[in-house]
Amino acid sequence: MSEQTSPVNNFHRKTNDRQEYQRTIRMDTESAQKVLYVEGTTLKANLGRCAPPNSKFFSVKCTPTVKYSVVPPPQETPPGSPVVLEDKSKLLISMTSASQHQDDSKLSVSYYGQDEDVLGTAVLHLTALEISLDVDADRDGVVEKNNPNKGSWKWGPDGHGAILLVNCDAERSYVDKPDNKVDYIAKLSDLKDMSVMALRTRGPAKLPEGYKLTMHTCEGHAEGLRVYMSKPRYGRQSSSGAAKDYTPVLSSHVLSGEVPYVGGEAETNFYVEGLRFPDKDFDGLVRISLSLLEPISPELPETPIFTDTVTFRVAPWIMTPNILEPAEVFVCSTSDNYAFLKGMRSLVAKSGYKLSVCHEYMNRGDRWMQDELEFGYIEAPHHRFPVVLDSPRDGKLLNFPYKELLGPDFGYVTRVAPRDDVSSLDSFGNLEVSPPVTVDGRKYPLGRIIIGVAFPTTTQGRHMIKVVQDFLWAQKVQKPIALYSDWLEVGHVDEFMTFVPAPDRKGFRLLLASPDAGYKLFRGLKNQGHGQAKLFEGCRNQETITVDEILEDTVLQADNNYVQSCIDWNRDVLKRELGLEDSDIIDLPILFQLKQNEGDVHRAVAFYPDMVNLIVLGKNLGIPKPFGPKVDGRCALEAEMCSLMEDLGLSCTFIDDFASYHLLQGEVHCGSNVRREPFDFKWWNLDM
Amino acid sequence: MSEQTSPVNNFHRKTNDRQEYQRTIRMDTESAQKVLYVEGTTLKANLGRCAPPNSKFFSVKCTPTVKYSVVPPPQETPPGSPVVLEDKSKLLISMTSASQHQDDSKLSVSYYGQDEDVLGTAVLHLTALEISLDVDADRDGVVEKNNPNKGSWKWGPDGHGAILLVNCDAERSYVDKPDNKVDYIAKLSDLKDMSVMALRTRGPAKLPEGYKLTMHTCEGHAEGLRVYMSKPRYGRQSSSGAAKDYTPVLSSHVLSGEVPYVGGEAETNFYVEGLRFPDKDFDGLVRISLSLLEPISPELPETPIFTDTVTFRVAPWIMTPNILEPAEVFVCSTSDNYAFLKGMRSLVAKSGYKLSVCHEYMNRGDRWMQDELEFGYIEAPHHRFPVVLDSPRDGKLLNFPYKELLGPDFGYVTRVAPRDDVSSLDSFGNLEVSPPVTVDGRKYPLGRIIIGVAFPTTTQGRHMIKVVQDFLWAQKVQKPIALYSDWLEVGHVDEFMTFVPAPDRKGFRLLLASPDAGYKLFRGLKNQGHGQAKLFEGCRNQETITVDEILEDTVLQADNNYVQSCIDWNRDVLKRELGLEDSDIIDLPILFQLKQNEGDVHRAVAFYPDMVNLIVLGKNLGIPKPFGPKVDGRCALEAEMCSLMEDLGLSCTFIDDFASYHLLQGEVHCGSNVRREPFDFKWWNLDM
Repeated sequence: MSEQTSPVNNFHRKTNDRQEYQRTIRMDTESAQKVLYVEGTTLKANLGRCAPPNSKFFSVKCTPTVKYSVVPPPQETPPGSPVVLEDKSKLLISMTSASQHQDDSKLSVSYYGQDEDVLGTAVLHLTALEISLDVDADRDGVVEKNNPNKGSWKWGPDGHGAILLVNCDAERSYVDKPDNKVDYIAKLSDLKDMSVMALRTRGPAKLPEGYKLTMHTCEGHAEGLRVYMSKPRYGRQSSSGAAKDYTPVLSSHVLSGEVPYVGGEAETNFYVEGLRFPDKDFDGLVRISLSLLEPISPELPETPIFTDTVTFRVAPWIMTPNILEPAEVFVCSTSDNYAFLKGMRSLVAKSGYKLSVCHEYMNRGDRWMQDELEFGYIEAPHHRFPVVLDSPRDGKLLNFPYKELLGPDFGYVTRVAPRDDVSSLDSFGNLEVSPPVTVDGRKYPLGRIIIGVAFPTTTQGRHMIKVVQDFLWAQKVQKPIALYSDWLEVGHVDEFMTFVPAPDRKGFRLLLASPDAGYKLFRGLKNQGHGQAKLFEGCRNQETITVDEILEDTVLQADNNYVQSCIDWNRDVLKRELGLEDSDIIDLPILFQLKQNEGDVHRAVAFYPDMVNLIVLGKNLGIPKPFGPKVDGRCALEAEMCSLMEDLGLSCTFIDDFASYHLLQGEVHCGSNVRREPFDFKWWNLDM
Repeated sequence: MSEQTSPVNNFHRKTNDRQEYQRTIRMDTESAQKVLYVEGTTLKANLGRCAPPNSKFFSVKCTPTVKYSVVPPPQETPPGSPVVLEDKSKLLISMTSASQHQDDSKLSVSYYGQDEDVLGTAVLHLTALEISLDVDADRDGVVEKNNPNKGSWKWGPDGHGAILLVNCDAERSYVDKPDNKVDYIAKLSDLKDMSVMALRTRGPAKLPEGYKLTMHTCEGHAEGLRVYMSKPRYGRQSSSGAAKDYTPVLSSHVLSGEVPYVGGEAETNFYVEGLRFPDKDFDGLVRISLSLLEPISPELPETPIFTDTVTFRVAPWIMTPNILEPAEVFVCSTSDNYAFLKGMRSLVAKSGYKLSVCHEYMNRGDRWMQDELEFGYIEAPHHRFPVVLDSPRDGKLLNFPYKELLGPDFGYVTRVAPRDDVSSLDSFGNLEVSPPVTVDGRKYPLGRIIIGVAFPTTTQGRHMIKVVQDFLWAQKVQKPIALYSDWLEVGHVDEFMTFVPAPDRKGFRLLLASPDAGYKLFRGLKNQGHGQAKLFEGCRNQETITVDEILEDTVLQADNNYVQSCIDWNRDVLKRELGLEDSDIIDLPILFQLKQNEGDVHRAVAFYPDMVNLIVLGKNLGIPKPFGPKVDGRCALEAEMCSLMEDLGLSCTFIDDFASYHLLQGEVHCGSNVRREPFDFKWWNLDM
């Protein structure tokens, strides 16, 4: 199926198409014609059309630089001698090399009557040009010459087609606006975020009078790109200009613009800037054309007599799963989270990563670093950088992404929505991504995005807002999965699932919260005589409860039966959509309880710190300290967790988030965020 | 590449997916569980999870209707004797036929300790249902049972997937609004414009308490469809209800709704109505799901435990080229077009088709029947009807399409645009379609749409408005070609090109206006001594001009050289994009002249009636009478035209449109329109 869904001019195909690019020209026995020829094309003259009346024969002469053939092929005759003129006789003309001077080549056709008397001669003065608009269509970071596939885009390792980055970083870190929002280049370093496009020409010192080169795109594509060039100085492009020397040739409101022709053998660089990410109404493909225009007269539009076209795809925004190497860990500092911060500092330091603390002047008490933003990146063969997706949640952390993160080589993108339409499910604790998987033979080498929504069968449920869902689906390379998370009070998928790296099987395990595993553990404790062991010992503002009391609480048991059925439902979906087996999944002993909210709806919250809401830093896990019942002085929940994780070579660090996060219905994962290194796998090598 | 670009719930795949649909259920030794089983699925119970502490062995018993297996498979033991319980032991359960009564089947698992003492028994009471949401996925006009491919859509003769019509006709001809604009069914006959979707169930007389069936779709898809059902009477669906008995189950604002379960073996019909055509933001695919919901408690949302999904594609709007059989010819009657109307009446009568005249009370003097609308059709295996695309031109004919054409089995669609943004290029004389072609091996069995625009290289040109272009491109099945028509004062492609049927080659010829052919003819006349023959003899308000005068007019020659270069440019594009050879093209002797308009731009108009602007009625052509120079009493232009067309077995009728159309810059084609029979080829058999 063609990828092209929006109107695109078919005015010219590129020269390298299988079907040769032919241009019909007129010949005239009354006056000599001047014709500009572009290498790789064929000129075609209809010999019958311009023949004087009563013409019966014709002959052709030309300079050595010109090649011609007659169709249909005439009967063999001595070279140069007249051949029979048929009504449909055509002359096909090409040239072997670019002209050094205007009109330096020539071809003439003489017409003869029945008695071989000359009735007239039509003369062409020819000038040959080489023109090529070039991009990095083979994706090696270098703009090659006239790639035969530059006009189209194909996914996969055998694919082709150039790539554009959305220029969503900010070269000037003190500006709160990404570079793609302004139509000038503030710093020269901004050019490296753009894709180089080279115009290569060879020909005489100047184009013949009135001819010109024009770059153009169409309305739909112009919304997605801007093209800059350096203003020519003294008739030549400056080799090392200042930022202000660069002006847009094309932009959303300028669909065509003249570009200079530089004589002899020349190369002019253009810089193509992506303006928008793929979305529901934009498939990410944009085309740019370069045409040679022929003048007719001042009152008439010039005719494009040759067009070369290149295609770019805007790089998608890509999320990074837990198995990727961390680059930087983010947490908030608040007036009451000292214990948590201390635990995190120690874990991050031990793991050898960088910790960035968002201080209170910026977070204004909003500690949910996971929820305000999601880290990802964009990549082209020539460049890549991290890009933060800012959630429409817009809590008190709302300024952090664009004030603190946006900067040189750190991009920013967001989707906005009316305040009243935003729900808790729009926080990005509800936006995760799996490690690479293969499902029924289909490979997802960048994993699959996971979000949480309500059952589609209910009319009252909460959902992730459509503008964000549309954005996520449109990126295409990490095809999303929608789970059921609306059964949770907060409603985030990170409350019941996460992924940790593993040395075997698929390279990871899916961890799921499991009340059944919790009850099994507690029943085992009771059987071993630990029914009086207490949970929540040492937690302020929290009464303790014994294992026996938990097991005797029939309401809690009913709540957890329901929660288990909700998680099992998601488990079945995850197994199908990620191609998992039961052995790829580990059940963690976690209990929930239902709370009645304003709308009389019962939704779940964690009964004790929700260990699945953990942070993965390489082989170290930062886990909410569960404050479970102690056996021989050791927390039985911690012991179980450690035992399960140690089998995978992972080390557990339990962090006390009880007062400052757990009681506010979040845990370690909700209160942190990790920017990770990109995948080694290049997204354009996906087989789509 | 996946066709899915917008968020769709992956909540369930259909039962027929390669990966079996498994549902995790809970077993409990404390209390027996009631479980509803849906045929084609597998229930999975984690035996370890609900085992009493210290369990070492287990055994399974069940009624004959239940099948089970244990994974991993235990070592062989005598049937019924206990097997070793492993931590990961799972029980897979299925059932062989639908239940007649609730809980009529049973399965139990007993757990044993080290000494084979019974520690507990978990019991399941099972009820089996058959549920299938069915459509005509094999496209034979009949809703088959549980087609394994009903959940997806594939193009081509080996393809599958159901089809939806936009219900854009009006069952009540006195209503000016298509049926898809109202959310009720006004007449029972409206049901035949919809696609039948059947819910087939088999099971006990009633669903167990609290269970229900829900139909649902997602936000993006709901915009494109509505689903009606007949309100059940006395607990049963009425077999022959009245229109008012039908109410929408799903619509753009209702994304889910309960549907009745009918006991025993039952089939309930739903009627699916398409609401919008494919467009830039809508790929035409919509999905509808049917879920079985399990109750938990009044405060908790019901859980979907089984979902069946069907996919429809909305049928595209298809244009009909000149080679198709006419069904009805449309012209306007005005105070001054008597001669034209007489000629058309005679031609249409001779050809044996129906002529419909739009009278002055409706056309209010607007005679351009071609420009206000384009006829096309939509088709599904069960039904098809013509659909008029109303142009945003909105001249005085603007009421005609929806007042006169819209009616039972005659659909209407339009795209609206701000008045000031509409140009002459938005008239549908500028929207044509080629006959079927094959280009570089790619087949277009429905031809390709042709529109005219300005060069993409100019910033001042006129274009066809984007909303219409987006619509045309989104239909996909007749991939459009953009020609250059802005060089014409009126700017329509039908001023320089048309297609006529032919008995040989590709089944048609492309006719092109050709000033060169015109000059050749006039020079030949002069050479034969007819230089004093006059054009325009007998035309009122028009001075005559001789062949000699034409040939001596150097300005006219220059104008026509330019026009020929514009047409040649289009000729080159058409050859490439339609895969044509020169022998597929016929040049008609037509001259143009340039006129200077307000904006100081020079654009072309026909110098004498533009013969290419003709109407094709089978083998009869209605051609503007050219009023050319007479030789031996016969118009030389008519003679040439007849000679060219007679070679193709076509008969020429010349119609005098001089005063009433030609002088107003239009001709026969501009002043008429033809509704044609649909293609035999079914669009869904296209290989995309």
